[in-house]
Amino acid sequence: MKVGFIGLGSMGRAMARNLLKAGHEVTVYNRTHARAEDLAGEGARVADALADTASGEVVITMLADDHALEDVLFGSGNLLGKLRADQIHVSMSTISVELSLSLVEAHRRHGTGYISAPVFGRPEAAEAAKLFVVAAGPKAAVTKCQPLFNAMGQKTFVLGEDPPAANVVKLSGNFLIVSTLECLGEAFALVRKYGIDPQQYLDMLTNSFFSAPFQKNYGGIIAQQRYEPPGFSLRLGAKDVRLILAAADAANVPMPVASVLHDRFLTGISRGLGEKDWSAIAQLEAESAGLK
Amino acid sequence: MKVGFIGLGSMGRAMARNLLKAGHEVTVYNRTHARAEDLAGEGARVADALADTASGEVVITMLADDHALEDVLFGSGNLLGKLRADQIHVSMSTISVELSLSLVEAHRRHGTGYISAPVFGRPEAAEAAKLFVVAAGPKAAVTKCQPLFNAMGQKTFVLGEDPPAANVVKLSGNFLIVSTLECLGEAFALVRKYGIDPQQYLDMLTNSFFSAPFQKNYGGIIAQQRYEPPGFSLRLGAKDVRLILAAADAANVPMPVASVLHDRFLTGISRGLGEKDWSAIAQLEAESAGLK
Amino acid sequence: MKVGFIGLGSMGRAMARNLLKAGHEVTVYNRTHARAEDLAGEGARVADALADTASGEVVITMLADDHALEDVLFGSGNLLGKLRADQIHVSMSTISVELSLSLVEAHRRHGTGYISAPVFGRPEAAEAAKLFVVAAGPKAAVTKCQPLFNAMGQKTFVLGEDPPAANVVKLSGNFLIVSTLECLGEAFALVRKYGIDPQQYLDMLTNSFFSAPFQKNYGGIIAQQRYEPPGFSLRLGAKDVRLILAAADAANVPMPVASVLHDRFLTGISRGLGEKDWSAIAQLEAESAGLK
Amino acid sequence: MKVGFIGLGSMGRAMARNLLKAGHEVTVYNRTHARAEDLAGEGARVADALADTASGEVVITMLADDHALEDVLFGSGNLLGKLRADQIHVSMSTISVELSLSLVEAHRRHGTGYISAPVFGRPEAAEAAKLFVVAAGPKAAVTKCQPLFNAMGQKTFVLGEDPPAANVVKLSGNFLIVSTLECLGEAFALVRKYGIDPQQYLDMLTNSFFSAPFQKNYGGIIAQQRYEPPGFSLRLGAKDVRLILAAADAANVPMPVASVLHDRFLTGISRGLGEKDWSAIAQLEAESAGLK
Repeated sequence: MKVGFIGLGSMGRAMARNLLKAGHEVTVYNRTHARAEDLAGEGARVADALADTASGEVVITMLADDHALEDVLFGSGNLLGKLRADQIHVSMSTISVELSLSLVEAHRRHGTGYISAPVFGRPEAAEAAKLFVVAAGPKAAVTKCQPLFNAMGQKTFVLGEDPPAANVVKLSGNFLIVSTLECLGEAFALVRKYGIDPQQYLDMLTNSFFSAPFQKNYGGIIAQQRYEPPGFSLRLGAKDVRLILAAADAANVPMPVASVLHDRFLTGISRGLGEKDWSAIAQLEAESAGLK
Repeated sequence: MKVGFIGLGSMGRAMARNLLKAGHEVTVYNRTHARAEDLAGEGARVADALADTASGEVVITMLADDHALEDVLFGSGNLLGKLRADQIHVSMSTISVELSLSLVEAHRRHGTGYISAPVFGRPEAAEAAKLFVVAAGPKAAVTKCQPLFNAMGQKTFVLGEDPPAANVVKLSGNFLIVSTLECLGEAFALVRKYGIDPQQYLDMLTNSFFSAPFQKNYGGIIAQQRYEPPGFSLRLGAKDVRLILAAADAANVPMPVASVLHDRFLTGISRGLGEKDWSAIAQLEAESAGLK
Repeated sequence: MKVGFIGLGSMGRAMARNLLKAGHEVTVYNRTHARAEDLAGEGARVADALADTASGEVVITMLADDHALEDVLFGSGNLLGKLRADQIHVSMSTISVELSLSLVEAHRRHGTGYISAPVFGRPEAAEAAKLFVVAAGPKAAVTKCQPLFNAMGQKTFVLGEDPPAANVVKLSGNFLIVSTLECLGEAFALVRKYGIDPQQYLDMLTNSFFSAPFQKNYGGIIAQQRYEPPGFSLRLGAKDVRLILAAADAANVPMPVASVLHDRFLTGISRGLGEKDWSAIAQLEAESAGLK
Repeated sequence: MKVGFIGLGSMGRAMARNLLKAGHEVTVYNRTHARAEDLAGEGARVADALADTASGEVVITMLADDHALEDVLFGSGNLLGKLRADQIHVSMSTISVELSLSLVEAHRRHGTGYISAPVFGRPEAAEAAKLFVVAAGPKAAVTKCQPLFNAMGQKTFVLGEDPPAANVVKLSGNFLIVSTLECLGEAFALVRKYGIDPQQYLDMLTNSFFSAPFQKNYGGIIAQQRYEPPGFSLRLGAKDVRLILAAADAANVPMPVASVLHDRFLTGISRGLGEKDWSAIAQLEAESAGLK
């Protein structure tokens, strides 16, 4: 399939590469041009301008935040203005439910297709084409894009025809992940304060009930306190927590643990941990317990 | 081995039965005599009085709470007074760190052995001899009891020679489980408020990253809102949350999510959910979001 | 002085009336025209269009929220476009710090003066010209407007030349008020659950240390559970709590009690209390304790 | 009246002195004998042993905590055993509701009178006989003790005949005070982060709505960050917060702000602020916001 791909961060680059590997014809664009050039050697066509990505059947965006996507679509990029009625925009990054609602409306007015298809997985999973894709949008459009999802992920969950539902689900999933970080941090602070060896504790947890891969992964980081280099920075984590709370606020859903997370991440940024891994909130919890 | 076993609730009965199956000579005692009689047919010797359990090498207690254990050991039961120096008390129920500290001291003075060996797992796991045992105590005593743990559990984690460490670890593990209930409840309230099908949401979660068995189990209960009959009642859950906070308090470890849990469980009891499954805290969260 | 006054809710109308009483020449505007007509009999000139308010030295806005003010200034109203360089805009309603920052910039570019001057006090205080005015803006402009503040309030606190500072202070003051509601609600739930008479409890509190007028006022409402008619609705309270958290978020200041408030107000809206007095959060607290 | 007075901390000493000034015959006892000797010059009879305080009509206790009172009454002191049926025990320190319930029962069995009469006010208020006394107990006994309360306080609130009610009210009042510290701390962190002068902010608050004396007092301490010497230490504050939560827990009343306080005070102790004034929790809040 002929695909435009915008946004080549650590996630986007891996995803675009897997599309290439699967034989799709991919035109890539990145604000910082050099990141796009890297993919030329792997068969990508490098767009000089945003508009060049709009020549295929599908344009995928994998951008840092709401602002970046708004800028690409409506702002200086004006990508929306360049899309034809038979083209589909697939938004795969983590954006707000509010923006997703606006995109539904904007694409409806413009006559273009819109699928929301955020993903679960860290850069390693993206590289291994092991992402989980959560897709929502018009059935025909989703079916058309399925080969692309297959090239990037290990499984696609189709949630219906209402794109923002996928964003809600993505955010609520992120909530479950980040709240695990907070809870692990509290648990480790407790056992460490009682003089228990963190690694021994972790072994017990992960070899008994706390056995999901993400639990093992983050448990290991927290047990060893290796918050650098960041897999996903605390500053970006704070952004995600804000999006969760915004979705909760808009629907009047009280989420007290999300509120605890919000205060924790603000503390992390204020105390200079913004560029550490987001699991470094466990360091704050240890400090509050007087550890180290 | 010759073993006394005190406390035949749904956990204790299954554990005693597995000791019998493994060929141990078990004398059982339960305050409500009838529950003990049930095991007679499976080879148990039924004690008429608490003291009769103290004739073997090891006495295991699996009682409802601190109060019950104190009563057995120090109170009307006066079990401690009947134990000889070469006997070992293995405390396997979930008790406070504070009581475990007292037991260390009481057994030291009395000259008897003491192992703290709480378990992870619900009654089904106890029946299937699939418990996880977290043991701490004098090395020789733990080694001696290993065949018993093998008969009841699938794995034993030995945490060192200080018995209360096992209680801290057990409580912190319970914290991770019960905080998962709270977080799942918040996530389900959010997605349901946005009109997303809970079962579809659950499928996505448990077939992607939220894949540990206890996550699937509780996710299913919450998605289907089947809080009866209780696997573990909200009232008992409240007791566990209190023990977690007491351990945190004694060590000056702030645990904000545990505090959220405490308020949630108090609400549950006040609103008449005490005898439902402890995952019914998700019902409170749904109600706070105006659902149902 | 010749003054335009936009926004005649229960606060604005009383404030405009006091300006008239003090001898100022006031042109009033309200989206719902009838509310403006009411003031004609008291000497106000009634503007047919927003632009008619821009003929004096000062234009005061007292609007419901950010959105209303943005619409008046930048949107359909385009009031900003009609202001001359020697005119001053005094924003007196509770708006976000973010919007206040935008206003600084917009007025700077347009060359007009801008004072932020939110007020403390309920409608009764506005009627009695007993408001507390918190003003920030260029010194000369504030001095010029002082007679207006004197006509509407009992005291003016000048916070410096940076307008958003006044908004931060107003929001933090609202935080102290609304957190008092939450804390009173928790305290009343506790004493009521122990069978203590709420009125007797209130008498003790307000005749000893809890003696500020707003404490007496809200204590009385909560003790008697008379949440209707609303002095200030829970729905509007939720808006204020959001503004507080937005200000905290922008400056990375964790405010856990504000987070508790946020969850509480969302619950209130979801449970149908949006149009009751904002102190009705105490009803939610009583219900969580199983009261009534 | 002939009165025994046990416990001569900064509160107790001032209270005993005011009883002497009012002409009562006071026998004082303190574990550290020297503190008692100080009062000899002011007319007190100094007891050599606890039992010597039990010769009058009333024995007042003003001790540090539950433990100290239990020790005096039931433990090594065995004061209860020495009281005659016509004597009244007035417990004036801040104790748990649970202990107060035990005292009701113990005095009933022993046939002695029991009044719970905790006080509001700091040592300066105690010295000036300006305490607020919250009394509950048998009507005749309270009437008999009224002259004593008059000598120590500016006002007595009689809450009925059930002594523990006075303890609940005292604890809930302390909750309102200590939650004010937390909220002030959050508000000051916010305004300071925005560069607003704390003293100017305080002036605005206390000269407008935040006008109760305790608000001014603590606002001043926090604005100036003078947490030493402590008027009431953070460590003792933590004790009070525990008593509040214990009372809430026993009655199944969720108190989320009290939970925030609990975590805050644990953090304070863990971070070495235990001997500072309890308002030093505001320092923790400032640090979490990255201030200083």
